[in-house]
Amino acid sequence: MPYSNSMTVGKYLVKRLEEAGLKHIFGVPGDYVLGFFDLLEASRMKVICTCNELNAGYAADAYARINGVGAVCVTYGVGGFSLFNAAVGAFAERVPLIVISGGPKLSERSHRHLLHHTIGDMNLQYNIYEKITVASTVLLSPEQAPREIDNTIAACLRYKRPVYIEVPVDIITKPCGEPGPFKPDTSIKSDKASLDEAVAETAAILSTAKNPAILAGVEVHRFNIRKELEELINHTGYPFASNLLGKAVLPEKHPQFTGVYNGAIGPESTRRVVEEADVLLSLGSLMTDVNLGIGTARLDISRMVVANSDNVRIKHHIYQHVGLKDFIAGLCSKLPAGKADLGKIDHPSKALKEDFTPVAGQKLTISRFYRRINHFIDKNHVILADAGDSLFCSAELFLPEGVEYIGQAFYLSIGYSLPATLGVELAAPDRRPVLFVGDGAFQMSAQELSTIIRNGLNPIIFLINNDGYTIERVINDGPYNDIKMWKYSMLPQVFGGGWGAEVKTEGELEDALKRAKDNPDSLAFIEVRLDKWDCSSILRNVGKLLGKQNVYR
Amino acid sequence: MPYSNSMTVGKYLVKRLEEAGLKHIFGVPGDYVLGFFDLLEASRMKVICTCNELNAGYAADAYARINGVGAVCVTYGVGGFSLFNAAVGAFAERVPLIVISGGPKLSERSHRHLLHHTIGDMNLQYNIYEKITVASTVLLSPEQAPREIDNTIAACLRYKRPVYIEVPVDIITKPCGEPGPFKPDTSIKSDKASLDEAVAETAAILSTAKNPAILAGVEVHRFNIRKELEELINHTGYPFASNLLGKAVLPEKHPQFTGVYNGAIGPESTRRVVEEADVLLSLGSLMTDVNLGIGTARLDISRMVVANSDNVRIKHHIYQHVGLKDFIAGLCSKLPAGKADLGKIDHPSKALKEDFTPVAGQKLTISRFYRRINHFIDKNHVILADAGDSLFCSAELFLPEGVEYIGQAFYLSIGYSLPATLGVELAAPDRRPVLFVGDGAFQMSAQELSTIIRNGLNPIIFLINNDGYTIERVINDGPYNDIKMWKYSMLPQVFGGGWGAEVKTEGELEDALKRAKDNPDSLAFIEVRLDKWDCSSILRNVGKLLGKQNVYR
Repeated sequence: MPYSNSMTVGKYLVKRLEEAGLKHIFGVPGDYVLGFFDLLEASRMKVICTCNELNAGYAADAYARINGVGAVCVTYGVGGFSLFNAAVGAFAERVPLIVISGGPKLSERSHRHLLHHTIGDMNLQYNIYEKITVASTVLLSPEQAPREIDNTIAACLRYKRPVYIEVPVDIITKPCGEPGPFKPDTSIKSDKASLDEAVAETAAILSTAKNPAILAGVEVHRFNIRKELEELINHTGYPFASNLLGKAVLPEKHPQFTGVYNGAIGPESTRRVVEEADVLLSLGSLMTDVNLGIGTARLDISRMVVANSDNVRIKHHIYQHVGLKDFIAGLCSKLPAGKADLGKIDHPSKALKEDFTPVAGQKLTISRFYRRINHFIDKNHVILADAGDSLFCSAELFLPEGVEYIGQAFYLSIGYSLPATLGVELAAPDRRPVLFVGDGAFQMSAQELSTIIRNGLNPIIFLINNDGYTIERVINDGPYNDIKMWKYSMLPQVFGGGWGAEVKTEGELEDALKRAKDNPDSLAFIEVRLDKWDCSSILRNVGKLLGKQNVYR
Repeated sequence: MPYSNSMTVGKYLVKRLEEAGLKHIFGVPGDYVLGFFDLLEASRMKVICTCNELNAGYAADAYARINGVGAVCVTYGVGGFSLFNAAVGAFAERVPLIVISGGPKLSERSHRHLLHHTIGDMNLQYNIYEKITVASTVLLSPEQAPREIDNTIAACLRYKRPVYIEVPVDIITKPCGEPGPFKPDTSIKSDKASLDEAVAETAAILSTAKNPAILAGVEVHRFNIRKELEELINHTGYPFASNLLGKAVLPEKHPQFTGVYNGAIGPESTRRVVEEADVLLSLGSLMTDVNLGIGTARLDISRMVVANSDNVRIKHHIYQHVGLKDFIAGLCSKLPAGKADLGKIDHPSKALKEDFTPVAGQKLTISRFYRRINHFIDKNHVILADAGDSLFCSAELFLPEGVEYIGQAFYLSIGYSLPATLGVELAAPDRRPVLFVGDGAFQMSAQELSTIIRNGLNPIIFLINNDGYTIERVINDGPYNDIKMWKYSMLPQVFGGGWGAEVKTEGELEDALKRAKDNPDSLAFIEVRLDKWDCSSILRNVGKLLGKQNVYR
């Protein structure tokens, strides 16, 4: 794989990807992008090929959540459109994902050739990606390519959302200018007057507040404002909650942490802190239906200050161009120091105070399983959960400091989490991922277990097998919620690595947990067999609520 | 599952789907579409749930190719976008596919709610599908829904391309008018004057032709013009060829059949008939790069009459609004009867004249494998092939009358064929599918083997295992073309049905073929182990050509 000394568009793009912070890039090769794969192989990045493109997208998304940026590279049409759902999910959940697609060569773009992997319209893929990215480009000219590449990648890093770069197959070898220093402006600029006024108004409201609280959301993580927010919390003494998409955005062991807010379906003590606050500061939180307890949240907008990445809403008026980081820093300097009233806080760590004593022959239940797992998680882990009961149950796990939590808690692509586990461990090689995934979700993307094995990774995967789409059963059951029962625990053998076990009792679970701890370098694939209708009480509530809202019959 | 007597939008849609000719509908449930799944379950159609949405789309596409129409039903966002690539492929290859997606309820569509499975823009999915469908609609009003449904389904049947119907979750129970008789106008209307002139000009050109020939393409199959074309061929005595996407569009045993034309990479005798014709009638053929031998076709437009579904091009002028069926019928009545010069035709059935004698201990090679298979195919089969060498090799198999050939020979989605096998067998339950799929392609959609087993189907699947993406190796090799080796033949056991075998020698292949014949009701999953670089000479040519055209380095 020659890598000549003169600069080309392909090499320029590779260099910027490296400089953006990528150590890995995910993808599936194809003939519109083989030359670029050669350049990637010759780069400092490691190319991680998955079994299909959608899964590459999911892996890159999860990688981005940990690493700060992720990238996926595929061929045109069949590749770009197969991974599309992953890019939509990244847009929804503010994930900085760079999508790179090969494309038809320059001379074939202007007229309607029926080239393979196309429908004859060479602008189709660009036109579609343009709708779900914050910047998108087709590199049509070697003169303009460097600036296009720089601007597109900068937009990804600034807005924490996907961008799209289409690379016609023959442009990569075209000479272009040498790259200058890569100093993209990725800050969200605040308008000073708006910022000052928003901070002043918020401080004035808080000056008479009796029991203010903070709701911390996912943007605090994405825009890397954790330190600033923790300072604000320490400085003011306010209690705070997170939510499903923002779980573990701040350390859960923080004494002022009150739990994961989820309207009436989350913990009651958390609900009270959030909903009974006379001033609620919502910082970086996305007001999604899932974050709001599926319509059960009772938040009074007239008592709220809602700050997102680039604006602040107080009651019913909005300040635009106010960056979240600046706003938090502004509050920290303007608000008086306060002392936390810890007596009022029902700290989620209390779950750990109660010992768990396994009963060897006793059939496992979902509630006993997660109670056991609460004692199993250690600071070395990263927790992942797929959509469904796994998400709701694992959200109630109490996480040690530094343990990240990865789940698509808004867009909810079932099947996301297994490829995500691949992405997470490559982004954080010193961590051991622990995944909770239902059987229905697992079947969606099952082949990536082989990619996890292929890369020598060691996650602990709990396949929660209750024989079907339980989340849908509790909403509206029908034969369509049944799936085929597999002999799941044979899969590590089929894919050639790690070990699998099926556990039905508390004793068998203990053995499997021990085996996982004792074999820290090996994939542990643990199938947890549960009764078909065994699910959490939260999920039952979610089911009732969604069923009622959508009135199926 | 109640199914009340009064008509509703949901029941109306179900009735029209039944009347359009659907006996099965593919999909994956989700909460925006559970109510509609209830109606589907109560209908005369059988609901076939796959492991993921993309695979449901592929299955429905293949079902449509056999059945004349196919449908897939998924939830909003995560469902609709995951299957998107299948819909693009159906558009490219003219497949009548009805895509049905649930959607947010009517009251939540007008403002930007952050509902799960959305990015907050409720028009996104419609706007995207609109680009690759011939009709698309969101059912927003019970008054207009019946007409919208009728028109959309009619467009699918008329133009043989995908349509999109979005069903907001709460509209399905809204009362609407009773359906009248379903008599959609699905004909392609010809302008009589244009038709007459086009036929007359073509007849005049042919009147002095010395060695005319016909190239028959996929639209003859899609628009159901087989009988008319066969009449024309019998009447004129012209020799004819098909191409990759149109393979088996007419019976290959027809004495005037000269083979599958593929430029210089297909059979030389076929190339000569097509390229040396003084008048070439191209009927329903798509001029794709793959159909044209990857740029090796030497077709002289000034000696061609190119008729497609609704227009005719003679040399450099075009007649619009001329239906293909009318044009063929017109030629048949206008042209004088002729006698075929069979002595000139090098009939592809000659491959069968040579016996195949297996050598028990001899290692299998790709060329010996397909020579053996040529004697194995019987009239009860349907042949499927995935993109890659499987497609090129199986295109040279000589097919008995009535044996259909299914492959995505233009859009080339790797991974299409395994879910397609599911769709094909449900559409033609009296047939036994025979699938050729490479290991790389298989890994893309491997989980649908479980759906094939779940539905009690009996295809014979040849997994051609040469350890990686061979089609890409011959274009441009690199480590990205490696994939993880699986113990493939264990998969039937994991998924709970059928049997698997690994064959390395000619003797082992004989045993497996016998076992497949002797167990006609069971899935036969035969892993054919080949050397890494063992592929057909056609594929080597394809690789060189694509490599040269795209100049990777």
